[in-house]
Amino acid sequence: MTYAVSGVNSAVATPVNADFSPDLGLLAEHCRWLLDNGCDGLAILGTTGEANSFSVAERQAIVEGVLKAGIAPERLLPGTGVAAGPDTVALTKHALANGVNRVVMLPPFYYKGMSDEGLFAAYARVIEQIGDDRLRVILYHIPQQSGVPLTYGLIGRLIEAFPGIVVGIKDSSGDKANLVGMVKAFPGFAVISGPDQLFLELLQAGGAGCITGASNLIPDVLRTIYDNWQTDPAKATAAQAKAAEWRNLTMTVPQIPALKALIGERTGNAGWRRMRPPFVALTDAQVADIAPKAAALRAG
Amino acid sequence: MTYAVSGVNSAVATPVNADFSPDLGLLAEHCRWLLDNGCDGLAILGTTGEANSFSVAERQAIVEGVLKAGIAPERLLPGTGVAAGPDTVALTKHALANGVNRVVMLPPFYYKGMSDEGLFAAYARVIEQIGDDRLRVILYHIPQQSGVPLTYGLIGRLIEAFPGIVVGIKDSSGDKANLVGMVKAFPGFAVISGPDQLFLELLQAGGAGCITGASNLIPDVLRTIYDNWQTDPAKATAAQAKAAEWRNLTMTVPQIPALKALIGERTGNAGWRRMRPPFVALTDAQVADIAPKAAALRAG
Repeated sequence: MTYAVSGVNSAVATPVNADFSPDLGLLAEHCRWLLDNGCDGLAILGTTGEANSFSVAERQAIVEGVLKAGIAPERLLPGTGVAAGPDTVALTKHALANGVNRVVMLPPFYYKGMSDEGLFAAYARVIEQIGDDRLRVILYHIPQQSGVPLTYGLIGRLIEAFPGIVVGIKDSSGDKANLVGMVKAFPGFAVISGPDQLFLELLQAGGAGCITGASNLIPDVLRTIYDNWQTDPAKATAAQAKAAEWRNLTMTVPQIPALKALIGERTGNAGWRRMRPPFVALTDAQVADIAPKAAALRAG
Repeated sequence: MTYAVSGVNSAVATPVNADFSPDLGLLAEHCRWLLDNGCDGLAILGTTGEANSFSVAERQAIVEGVLKAGIAPERLLPGTGVAAGPDTVALTKHALANGVNRVVMLPPFYYKGMSDEGLFAAYARVIEQIGDDRLRVILYHIPQQSGVPLTYGLIGRLIEAFPGIVVGIKDSSGDKANLVGMVKAFPGFAVISGPDQLFLELLQAGGAGCITGASNLIPDVLRTIYDNWQTDPAKATAAQAKAAEWRNLTMTVPQIPALKALIGERTGNAGWRRMRPPFVALTDAQVADIAPKAAALRAG
């Protein structure tokens, strides 16, 4: 089965300068490290990447910056779904104009309790206004942040209306039944795990891959899961246990700041700790708590 | 007590054309009707105005369109708070450049569970980047849509850090204790009711005014509450009961589509029913159900 998106993909964290502008050089360096260490794709500008704290213009500059640094457009899976449909269209058209065909698309996320009919109309209108057969949309189900869950009914309707365009979904809900259930419900559709800890179970159920936060720290571990789950299940299971330990460590403090702080530990660049408001960087004490635990996990 | 915002203000609905672009002519007509029928201010581009379904450029065009139609800038209270700080800055600077000093500002609303420290930093950064002493910010507490509640601790800290700039709050939570509690907690701060049904109780508790949805239909009734609550309590109480009936009627179906459909009934312009996705317009059957009830309320 060839999916439009599969394997190990990173929900890439976005480093920022002291003025909270994106640090494009550091980001490109991190992207290269991720590809060199086991990632198939780079889901820049996702939830982990603080995407929704950046303006449309900043998001476009981030995509262009990564491409200019030599990352191939086929590797990118930028998030382009924002609250306002016309901005989602603009961001997606910009990606396509730069050779990036695959995007991860949130539903419009300000208004809550919208009907499947309304969400279908919103997605359909965006796809039709983009009007580009190269487009490949990965839907994004992350109700704990967006407040806008994507039901099976909505997903099925979008797949049927836009075959070959609506090609997958990233499920970050953490609900295993919802995640693995989609594999059976939508044959040929790329079901992608957001949570690190569900990656192996999803693969065993026939899923396509992952887009995770801990990949920023342990792309090699996730790679081991993906490369061995069929041929060496024990090795894959051990790697999955390790990935879960990393994920759990980052959840002992605010997760996204933890991921960035631990990238900072790996690279020796404390600038990585910075978070654009409304996020707050980890305190020195928090870093001092988790850094040795991460080192122990890496060594162990 | 003179507040920076007080009295009867409308959370103005935004009419759209058949292609879902804002119908600026119809909007200006509605704004004039609202002012002619009892509104002190026009909170365009709020939740009711489907603001977060419009792009930054569309929102700027809406502000300009209303001003070009002759509405005085002192009457406007546009919503300018969006998910990304730089866009909030751009929208607010644009308002100020057009003579509109008072804005209603949501917190950044994509990321949930942010700390007061992070939300303070986000608001502070926006206000500092705007850097304009004319600015008057009305905070916006609507956790059921934004997913980002504003605590008393955060509000107090913002008032203290930006005296004369952070001047009020619209509370749409529907939590009466939270609403009236702010009057005592923050003397001189303009506490504004989002829910129509809490307007009189807020005034009696010392609050400043309202910014409501039903004002699109019954500005005169809300005006009666505001003009009589001290001098003719019975008249104000009767008007409040009437306002609550209108509000309850619009809540029997999706509220914002109901408001627009009933404006359509009043004006004889069915184009008012249109909703930009992800909202869905009321069905003919829904309109047929609520329209006679609205007519009865108006007559009774």
